[in-house]
Amino acid sequence: MSIFLKTIPVKEAIGIAAGIARPLPPEEVPLNEAVGRVLAGDVYPDLDIPGFDRSVVDGYAVVASDTAGAGEAIPSLLTLSATVRMGEGAGSEVRAGHCAYVPTGGAVPPGADAVVMVEDCEVIGDQVLVRRPVGSGENIVRRGEDFSRDRPALRAGRRLRPADCGVLAAIGCSVVPVFPMPRVGVISTGNELVDAREVPGEGRVRDSNGPMIAAYLRTCGCREKTYGIVPDDRGALALALRRALDENDAVLLSGGSSKDERDLTADLIAELGEVLVHGIAISPGKPTIIGRCGKKPVIGLPGHPASALVVLDTVARPLLRALCGEETRIRPMILAVLAENIPSARGREDYIRVRLDGGRAVPLFGKSGLLNTLAESDGMVRVPAGSEGLEAGTTVEVVLW
Amino acid sequence: MSIFLKTIPVKEAIGIAAGIARPLPPEEVPLNEAVGRVLAGDVYPDLDIPGFDRSVVDGYAVVASDTAGAGEAIPSLLTLSATVRMGEGAGSEVRAGHCAYVPTGGAVPPGADAVVMVEDCEVIGDQVLVRRPVGSGENIVRRGEDFSRDRPALRAGRRLRPADCGVLAAIGCSVVPVFPMPRVGVISTGNELVDAREVPGEGRVRDSNGPMIAAYLRTCGCREKTYGIVPDDRGALALALRRALDENDAVLLSGGSSKDERDLTADLIAELGEVLVHGIAISPGKPTIIGRCGKKPVIGLPGHPASALVVLDTVARPLLRALCGEETRIRPMILAVLAENIPSARGREDYIRVRLDGGRAVPLFGKSGLLNTLAESDGMVRVPAGSEGLEAGTTVEVVLW
Repeated sequence: MSIFLKTIPVKEAIGIAAGIARPLPPEEVPLNEAVGRVLAGDVYPDLDIPGFDRSVVDGYAVVASDTAGAGEAIPSLLTLSATVRMGEGAGSEVRAGHCAYVPTGGAVPPGADAVVMVEDCEVIGDQVLVRRPVGSGENIVRRGEDFSRDRPALRAGRRLRPADCGVLAAIGCSVVPVFPMPRVGVISTGNELVDAREVPGEGRVRDSNGPMIAAYLRTCGCREKTYGIVPDDRGALALALRRALDENDAVLLSGGSSKDERDLTADLIAELGEVLVHGIAISPGKPTIIGRCGKKPVIGLPGHPASALVVLDTVARPLLRALCGEETRIRPMILAVLAENIPSARGREDYIRVRLDGGRAVPLFGKSGLLNTLAESDGMVRVPAGSEGLEAGTTVEVVLW
Repeated sequence: MSIFLKTIPVKEAIGIAAGIARPLPPEEVPLNEAVGRVLAGDVYPDLDIPGFDRSVVDGYAVVASDTAGAGEAIPSLLTLSATVRMGEGAGSEVRAGHCAYVPTGGAVPPGADAVVMVEDCEVIGDQVLVRRPVGSGENIVRRGEDFSRDRPALRAGRRLRPADCGVLAAIGCSVVPVFPMPRVGVISTGNELVDAREVPGEGRVRDSNGPMIAAYLRTCGCREKTYGIVPDDRGALALALRRALDENDAVLLSGGSSKDERDLTADLIAELGEVLVHGIAISPGKPTIIGRCGKKPVIGLPGHPASALVVLDTVARPLLRALCGEETRIRPMILAVLAENIPSARGREDYIRVRLDGGRAVPLFGKSGLLNTLAESDGMVRVPAGSEGLEAGTTVEVVLW
């Protein structure tokens, strides 16, 4: 049975793709393995951070009102009554007319409500001349000002950045609840394909999509499991797909660039589950299949490398993010001025590879079967479905590969 | 000996940092481990890619001139004399008046110089009606058009993206020459610091910089080796630094936010090598130290978490990239409209944390000792040294963390 290829808009395809993926039940990892993982629950500090009033400068803890009116000409004169050491308690109270030396990060003694920087003071014996007034609270981080126990420091769904790992350490979260990295099977189909280690015979080419998709999965925080090259044979492909579904949380098939091959993939997905999308109004990448077998998403990617990459980055990515439990975040990109006109047909989204050259985005109009434009390009520019193209000189957003 | 803190411009500091790091001698990894690694040599295809004239559509290979003038009303009539199968040779010559069916990716037989898409043809028995003319070369990727043996497909210094892994597979590079991932030691100093697993006592805080720096190193393609928390003690710090230098290709120290601690770090680096920079005109992050012990770079990062992250991302990053052998590439960012004025002092570069809110960048003016602004922020905005600030409404570039 050949399933009719009926294209749907990109946005709809993304919605379907993201909607059929769920993260796995949470697991725990040590803090030093947490970067790049997705937080599976809100995390709260175990205590107020900082746990004491902390000085943010090297200086003298004072009663702020003692410094009112202090200046170069008429400094305030205070008695140095204590020195706070790093990592020790704040010591005894600072009373009016007195001060205590506090290093950066040190505890501000009770009684003091501000710290004057050493640069604004002069020490003569046990007397300190303060040459600048400070307001109450100045140069102090209050107890609980950074994080308090009743508010989550970080929320579920965040892919942890280095700074987040610093936050986790500060709040005592040394074992981190994260979503497991999903395992995704990769199957390359095509009678013409040989492995990268082989020299292709007549009419054959090396499989480039398999290694590209596997690498892409790694950069998305997934674990790839590759099933090599499967010939365009119903039995062989059914066997590989069943095994990949058994062993993974999702499966990406690639190849099937000719109509017969695409039909074979769609037929098999329909047999093992259901085909939800067969054709997207996107260029390159129209013959994309999205399906579900049991609860496991399956995507049939187009065979041309550029098409496969565009579909990976636009349609598969939201699915993979949902599978990771990652919530939508900002995607970094580069703004650049288009160097040439990009013609486009209304009714489909066009994704044009571009090379960045200073502030200019130079379109690379290579055939989507070519890999060299992928190697040369820095990313892609989207031409919306309602547009007939973009003019040279327009400022465009380039999503980097 | 206290080394005088003399600030230098950020650009100069970056030049020094990048100039003291060299990549390690190349190693080889299998293709499936190559993504994210840095290519250590130019790689050439072992043969022309594709190795044959390849059709990019499902269609009929023809002598293009046979289709001249073909249209809906008066189609060209050709005899179907062969069918090319995927992964097989191109078969016998297509002569004038004849055509051969070729699937997408299939080999175009000799004699034919174009392929007509099936959509433009009608088959009646062994006759094919062609309803659209094709030009010579149309729908064909020529042998060697993608990659030829005499030009490198990818050049040294590139951090390999997923598409590059596809290219490597296509050109038969299944074992990839890459620079080793540098090993970088991380030392946290400070009497006030305790590990994330401990409950801090009076005047103490958990070490957040150590885990943050270690995580940052991972995201930069380095291997981190942590040396835990070292007290502000000359002997203990000297021991830790010597050991870290022995066991790594570079060392990052953090902490030392008070002047005494900074001096200790600088003194030790001077004793084991040389201090090249002691103070950068950057805010936050001024008390940064860059040095070299033997041939190994050492950076003393400021103790405040926000300062440490800003210096990591502006000054340490170029050093780490040079250590990885990575050549300068475009850094993705987001353009946004500044939601509030940012005041700044001339003569230093200010890096302001911002939160992205739709198309707006909202400055977070928290003290650099706070971690919560790091968790809340999406990235930072740079205010150049020559500027007195940025006005609300200005379009700014946000570098994402």
